[in-house]
Amino acid sequence: LSIALVGLCTALPAVAAAPNLVSTSLDNALPIDPAGSPSPGRCYWKRVMDMNDRSLRDIVIGLGEKNGPPREDGFDITAASEIMAILCLSSSYGELKERIGRILLGKRADGSPFLVSDLGVQNAAAALLKDALLPNLVQTTEGGPALIHGGPFANIAQGANSVLATNLALRMGDIAVTEAGFGFDLGAEKFFDIVSPYGGFAPDMVVLVATARVLKMHGGVNKKELDAPDPEAVRRGAENLVKHIENIGKFGVPALVAINAFPGDTPEEHAAIADICADAGAAFALSEHFARGGEGAADLAKKAMEILDAGGGKGAPLYDWKASVEEKIETVARQIYGAEAVDFTTAAKRDIKAIVAGGYDGLPVCIAKTQSSLSDNPQLLGRPKDFLVTVRRIVINAGAGFLVPLTGDIMRMPGLPRVPSALNIDIDDDGVISGLS
Amino acid sequence: LSIALVGLCTALPAVAAAPNLVSTSLDNALPIDPAGSPSPGRCYWKRVMDMNDRSLRDIVIGLGEKNGPPREDGFDITAASEIMAILCLSSSYGELKERIGRILLGKRADGSPFLVSDLGVQNAAAALLKDALLPNLVQTTEGGPALIHGGPFANIAQGANSVLATNLALRMGDIAVTEAGFGFDLGAEKFFDIVSPYGGFAPDMVVLVATARVLKMHGGVNKKELDAPDPEAVRRGAENLVKHIENIGKFGVPALVAINAFPGDTPEEHAAIADICADAGAAFALSEHFARGGEGAADLAKKAMEILDAGGGKGAPLYDWKASVEEKIETVARQIYGAEAVDFTTAAKRDIKAIVAGGYDGLPVCIAKTQSSLSDNPQLLGRPKDFLVTVRRIVINAGAGFLVPLTGDIMRMPGLPRVPSALNIDIDDDGVISGLS
Amino acid sequence: LSIALVGLCTALPAVAAAPNLVSTSLDNALPIDPAGSPSPGRCYWKRVMDMNDRSLRDIVIGLGEKNGPPREDGFDITAASEIMAILCLSSSYGELKERIGRILLGKRADGSPFLVSDLGVQNAAAALLKDALLPNLVQTTEGGPALIHGGPFANIAQGANSVLATNLALRMGDIAVTEAGFGFDLGAEKFFDIVSPYGGFAPDMVVLVATARVLKMHGGVNKKELDAPDPEAVRRGAENLVKHIENIGKFGVPALVAINAFPGDTPEEHAAIADICADAGAAFALSEHFARGGEGAADLAKKAMEILDAGGGKGAPLYDWKASVEEKIETVARQIYGAEAVDFTTAAKRDIKAIVAGGYDGLPVCIAKTQSSLSDNPQLLGRPKDFLVTVRRIVINAGAGFLVPLTGDIMRMPGLPRVPSALNIDIDDDGVISGLS
Amino acid sequence: LSIALVGLCTALPAVAAAPNLVSTSLDNALPIDPAGSPSPGRCYWKRVMDMNDRSLRDIVIGLGEKNGPPREDGFDITAASEIMAILCLSSSYGELKERIGRILLGKRADGSPFLVSDLGVQNAAAALLKDALLPNLVQTTEGGPALIHGGPFANIAQGANSVLATNLALRMGDIAVTEAGFGFDLGAEKFFDIVSPYGGFAPDMVVLVATARVLKMHGGVNKKELDAPDPEAVRRGAENLVKHIENIGKFGVPALVAINAFPGDTPEEHAAIADICADAGAAFALSEHFARGGEGAADLAKKAMEILDAGGGKGAPLYDWKASVEEKIETVARQIYGAEAVDFTTAAKRDIKAIVAGGYDGLPVCIAKTQSSLSDNPQLLGRPKDFLVTVRRIVINAGAGFLVPLTGDIMRMPGLPRVPSALNIDIDDDGVISGLS
Repeated sequence: LSIALVGLCTALPAVAAAPNLVSTSLDNALPIDPAGSPSPGRCYWKRVMDMNDRSLRDIVIGLGEKNGPPREDGFDITAASEIMAILCLSSSYGELKERIGRILLGKRADGSPFLVSDLGVQNAAAALLKDALLPNLVQTTEGGPALIHGGPFANIAQGANSVLATNLALRMGDIAVTEAGFGFDLGAEKFFDIVSPYGGFAPDMVVLVATARVLKMHGGVNKKELDAPDPEAVRRGAENLVKHIENIGKFGVPALVAINAFPGDTPEEHAAIADICADAGAAFALSEHFARGGEGAADLAKKAMEILDAGGGKGAPLYDWKASVEEKIETVARQIYGAEAVDFTTAAKRDIKAIVAGGYDGLPVCIAKTQSSLSDNPQLLGRPKDFLVTVRRIVINAGAGFLVPLTGDIMRMPGLPRVPSALNIDIDDDGVISGLS
Repeated sequence: LSIALVGLCTALPAVAAAPNLVSTSLDNALPIDPAGSPSPGRCYWKRVMDMNDRSLRDIVIGLGEKNGPPREDGFDITAASEIMAILCLSSSYGELKERIGRILLGKRADGSPFLVSDLGVQNAAAALLKDALLPNLVQTTEGGPALIHGGPFANIAQGANSVLATNLALRMGDIAVTEAGFGFDLGAEKFFDIVSPYGGFAPDMVVLVATARVLKMHGGVNKKELDAPDPEAVRRGAENLVKHIENIGKFGVPALVAINAFPGDTPEEHAAIADICADAGAAFALSEHFARGGEGAADLAKKAMEILDAGGGKGAPLYDWKASVEEKIETVARQIYGAEAVDFTTAAKRDIKAIVAGGYDGLPVCIAKTQSSLSDNPQLLGRPKDFLVTVRRIVINAGAGFLVPLTGDIMRMPGLPRVPSALNIDIDDDGVISGLS
Repeated sequence: LSIALVGLCTALPAVAAAPNLVSTSLDNALPIDPAGSPSPGRCYWKRVMDMNDRSLRDIVIGLGEKNGPPREDGFDITAASEIMAILCLSSSYGELKERIGRILLGKRADGSPFLVSDLGVQNAAAALLKDALLPNLVQTTEGGPALIHGGPFANIAQGANSVLATNLALRMGDIAVTEAGFGFDLGAEKFFDIVSPYGGFAPDMVVLVATARVLKMHGGVNKKELDAPDPEAVRRGAENLVKHIENIGKFGVPALVAINAFPGDTPEEHAAIADICADAGAAFALSEHFARGGEGAADLAKKAMEILDAGGGKGAPLYDWKASVEEKIETVARQIYGAEAVDFTTAAKRDIKAIVAGGYDGLPVCIAKTQSSLSDNPQLLGRPKDFLVTVRRIVINAGAGFLVPLTGDIMRMPGLPRVPSALNIDIDDDGVISGLS
Repeated sequence: LSIALVGLCTALPAVAAAPNLVSTSLDNALPIDPAGSPSPGRCYWKRVMDMNDRSLRDIVIGLGEKNGPPREDGFDITAASEIMAILCLSSSYGELKERIGRILLGKRADGSPFLVSDLGVQNAAAALLKDALLPNLVQTTEGGPALIHGGPFANIAQGANSVLATNLALRMGDIAVTEAGFGFDLGAEKFFDIVSPYGGFAPDMVVLVATARVLKMHGGVNKKELDAPDPEAVRRGAENLVKHIENIGKFGVPALVAINAFPGDTPEEHAAIADICADAGAAFALSEHFARGGEGAADLAKKAMEILDAGGGKGAPLYDWKASVEEKIETVARQIYGAEAVDFTTAAKRDIKAIVAGGYDGLPVCIAKTQSSLSDNPQLLGRPKDFLVTVRRIVINAGAGFLVPLTGDIMRMPGLPRVPSALNIDIDDDGVISGLS
């Protein structure tokens, strides 16, 4: 029996060059043919940089007599680029070129859409990704093979590694194990509703990772006091875990909860999690891989095999892509997040009109939402109820093939804290780096 | 007899991360302590990107209620970053940290200077350059070793590979051969006046590369007609070559002209170059390495060894670093470029006052000038006379340890042409890239 | 029996100078003492201009090395300036100075508020308003006296002429008649809830002006077809009039509807309005002053005198200023606009926190709302129901002494239509201007 | 014998409305027809405001999704507007419309010029100036009539009152006396070279006003010590006065120096000025009108009448409008300012090319220069020699009918000092304003 692992890796410097090539080509074209190019005020495409740099979120470029026309622009973090998403959904150089060519860059003064293919740099942008499209084969600390490929964040993009790597894993192993970033409400929902239809996947089961620390946090414990044993708090945080277990069922697959043991955890805390799972009717197993390596996960693996041997499930999307944009968003918000309703701002309503007018309403919705809560408000812990999800804007990612509703205050470019980690990082005379964590 | 080659390579993605880390840390600090940080209008440090992107030359960042304060900024091309220059002048991680720490980022409202060390990220920035500081050993097509390391452009920076790589070459070979970018007036002047004093080098001789094509261009032939044989045009362009030969003598070393044969050259054209050299009293040799490999350069090598065996020279700087800023610039402009005088704009005069007030006037001058002419005007070919060099601004590169007078219209961020090359680049299904030249 | 008329006049060029003096003084101070001045990103005060100029709504100022620091700013139309509001609420030069001094300009980096009095230009700004504070005595076409003074728009400010002029009218005449701009939901609500408490007024009755044209519009007739007689449409628009009549009752005063006759109106249309009033239990009278002058309004005047002779009412505010900010807004939105609820954006919630922290929560709320609908959505005609009012932001007008919740898409700077009226305006050789309407 | 006085008055609020109407109409047009409108980066027209507001010198407008396209703009002080210049050169509403229509607003992407007449608002802008075009008749403190009309600053515009008012004065009086702002090198040079040809004037003589205080300043006395008597300093400053006397002769008219007595002047200082005039061969007279009214100027008037009775001169321009742009600028700079040569920046050279290409090179040059020195450097007092005049840019004022070379650091929008006068201005309860000087 062979197992193929697949996973994400966020740092791909080459991915930054491709969107920035599109940007500089776009700005180069603007002054040459003002009527044939997008209006400076209606360019949707952003530059990217792999820094947490809030001062680049909202900028004006093209100032100076010969550098314009000026326009408002901004940088997203590289992992948030549509081209990162495209890289992970493309199975060939041809598909890469085709998808990049389809990216919607903006609108002309006459209202017509302007695509990368109108600019003509889709092939050059794909050429920059020549090596980036190839999955990387690495090994685990115990020598097992793993394919690490692609890094779209799950809070702002699809949160799964490349379709190419997953298909490779499916062909290489009897069982392919992949990860879907952040909570089940983010990476996994998108894996079922977006990545699987595009990749042709039907997952057999879901392993849901639970830790005592996170449940204590959802049970109201302050982040600085998570080290103290507190099985009662674990129980108070149970609702969050139960909601995720319920959600898994909505996609037609069985759930197995991996109780991910941390050094300071107590048996009472683990027992509390086991109780929650049992009450919710979900299989579970203690997994001590962090401390004991592969052997520590043997019990988890056995439980997983039992489920698979019993037939597993057949993963299916939650919603029909043909439903209206509002309906698709509301379905996820209500059923997965537990929201009471969705509030669309005036700007979001205008966006929906443009989406329908442009024929993009048949695309799935890749909701950008905070990873700190089931809701779109990072302050609401546990299993929030009676909350509204606010959709601020809806971005068309025509090349990736999905719509990105922006909820709450989610940003595509993070910022630094008051005291950045960089202040603690050093390199000594022998090139040994310290202060990284 | 062993020969160690050293050279430049411009593409070092890691170098981009370090200056951008400094930038984002700076902008993060501005709103926290407005009096202790530089004034938003007096930040001199720019971000970098490895694109020809004129729309990023002059931008406003930090817009939006939570992303500010806003300020004017811009991107330079990565190779123009002071950190690229520092990397090539540093011999250890310690020196790297020290030099980065010394970079002048801006001035506070009270007029006091604000350095990277005031920000505290010099160590983290150096850590990002851990691998970049190590010279790369590659091989020539004939299997000879070559150290390729660092890429500061010679028109806007010092134009030489790293001091570390050159010192390694000096220790590895009986003879170390390095390159100094663009014309002798740019890379080589800076090699003698800046790099050699910092690295402790005293070059023994200079090999000056001459081609029939370039001399024809200086002789007035249109770029599109350089393929046609035209020994008369070569002779008309002679003055440019003669000026470079004269310039070499000013640094106390003998010159050997390498007549670099191109496929379409005629013997008559090569003979014209030889005549020019003979008239100017310089040694010369035909070099056919492009067509015939190492063997084609044997004659050139023999001539070089004759010069070295005869003792060579002892390279020395053209000017005393202790001279005034104006005097140092005027010395280079008059003696090397052949200018009649130097015109300092009002802004440049203010810059000199600030340089003197800050105690930076003892640094050498790394003049930013077009590579297309001996003058600061790219239109003036041959050996221009009676021209003024205009110094627009003078930038303090305190970490690199030089001042950068900006002359003419030289820019630190290039732009794309009306029809960018990217439109012709493609990648096929097998990953073969076409259209690169 | 004497009647004193009071009214608004929007064009007061001198009013523009005062806010712009504050602005230029503020920007002059910023670079001199960055810690003692507001953060460039936290200046709330805007410049003004008496133009419909959307391109000045959102701008960046202070660019250029010596003109900064840069910051985001914008122009409001002059009538929207807090100083226009202050002028109309001040009864002496002393009060003018005191109120201007209290204006909140922004916050320092340490979070402390920065007022005009911290800048020190309140006296100079008041001096610019020397003549503007004095009410203008003009005459009607029939020679009756009228005081015209001040012009804060009722959609974005308090919409009433100056307290000084109204008090003068109260002393001059047996009866003082004033206007309160736009619909009863805007100018009149603010007259009862803000202007009357500040001025010490208790209105005796309200004359509500109704026209067949507007009721037809609320009854669904296209703007271009309002000339066609359509009593049925008047009846369909009745709900809007009825809601205004109901609203008047909530302030403790009797209503008299003036049926304002227009040239093309038909008797059937006027009768329809009369029926609506009768059904709603309100007094009414046809008023033909436009066609017949004062005589045409005699019937209206007689009805008004009957109401006053019967004692009139005693106008009182709708809400207690001591209620919470949310409660005050919700009271107006529910009771006057007929909204189901109020939706506060995240930014508005943050604004409320700052209002409470700054001790400004005891001020009345001067809601900025479209004049085209009872709701905050200009598309909803008649008497809209089941709608949410969205509060985007809440501006503190500490000098005027009220909070300005911005609802819907209301703007403080209008824009020009695609074909501006200026294209039709001309002046001939004798100085006769044409094309003004 | 009747004398008609004419003069300038800078504050004309209505003049601000006209240029701002043009601006808002321009920005309204930009997004509607990008190819038919000027490129956002090539709009030359600025907004105006009557404030010293350096933060408005260089701004970005049109930010926000619906307010654009964004572009760089700036505000000039109202008196610097081309429309102020036009008002003072127009003799009828027709001419006003025609000249405003001719204003060059920018260039389209295809390089073609875009005029106010292409925008179509010249008539509306002229209508705003209906009253402003009419000269104001005021009276002196002794009851003499004076026409006060128009206020273009002499350092940045033509510095003379309106042609209409001067022509009225010529018709009303036997003698018309007008003023030409700042020094003879500014207002007067422009009166002879620009205003007189347009107005059809040929001045008979020049009265040059001299004060002991200014000559002491040119003699090196610090501004704060000008009150102390110092005839020696007056003598040291003589060169400045002599240069102005020489300059008058170049325009073909006799000079009469008015020694303008100030309260603290001493007879020795006045005698020193008289000596300078005598040595320079110029007539002179002490004028004590400030202390003694019209009677105090009787001696000056008598001397003036003697000159006129003797025939006076016949004022003529210094240069031929048909000369090249460079030649016209150099003629004024060398002959009037005393410059050695003129330095045109690269940008100014490009401007000249555009001026020639657009057919504007036959216009006179209205040089913008500091009023603090005969040179373009405000630091150089007395009679500077061996200096270069630097022409930074050349602005086309096609409607006013002149070119505006910008020299030195002259700005069209002034800034406030560190401690603005506004801090001292107050208004008391009776409306009495204090602190104005």
